Amino acid sequence: MIQTINLKDKLTRITEYWHPGIVGELNDSHLKLAKLKGEFLWHHHDVEDELFMVIKGSLVIKLPDKDLHINEGEFVIIPHGVEHKPVAEEEVHVLLMEPKATRNTGNVENERTVEPEWL
Amino acid sequence: MIQTINLKDKLTRITEYWHPGIVGELNDSHLKLAKLKGEFLWHHHDVEDELFMVIKGSLVIKLPDKDLHINEGEFVIIPHGVEHKPVAEEEVHVLLMEPKATRNTGNVENERTVEPEWL
Repeated sequence: MIQTINLKDKLTRITEYWHPGIVGELNDSHLKLAKLKGEFLWHHHDVEDELFMVIKGSLVIKLPDKDLHINEGEFVIIPHGVEHKPVAEEEVHVLLMEPKATRNTGNVENERTVEPEWL
Repeated sequence: MIQTINLKDKLTRITEYWHPGIVGELNDSHLKLAKLKGEFLWHHHDVEDELFMVIKGSLVIKLPDKDLHINEGEFVIIPHGVEHKPVAEEEVHVLLMEPKATRNTGNVENERTVEPEWL
């Protein structure tokens, strides 16, 4: 069913940090929303490029050679193969776009690995 | 080069309505920005699903059986094969995500067909 999706409405359904929820699918990719706070782990995705767009707050994505600062209304694309570590000093709301097969922890599988569900 | 992109900054570079500019690429798709005003044409995309997210203003996308109303902070995904016609009563700023091969006028080629360039 084709319908209009409101980002803020969907965000109210998220109750756990670092647990993305799916809000759309197109061309074998998923559009996801997530609330982040604290530090994630260093990881990379072997074949998937990943978009992070900040809806609310400020996010830092650490790369091997620099820190990217992403504020509301800004995005970055992390190409496949690039090690990165998201860090949110305060709560931040992000929109993610990545292939359906993408695992949140990339090449790492541990207690922070989660399966995304539809919001 | 991996860098932070600011949507509003990029939007200032757009001077023509219905002329999307590319702001990112990932997984064989392009992320584009566009300013829309007035009526576009009925068209569909044979194989590409298309995301419309409203950054500023209000957009209507006419479908064969209903009108979709998309306001700031909302998005719709138009699956491939679905006829649609975007209509912007007032100027609206949108973010688009679609495969690189996507033509703006889909199955139609006419004077409104444009080649997107990087902003």
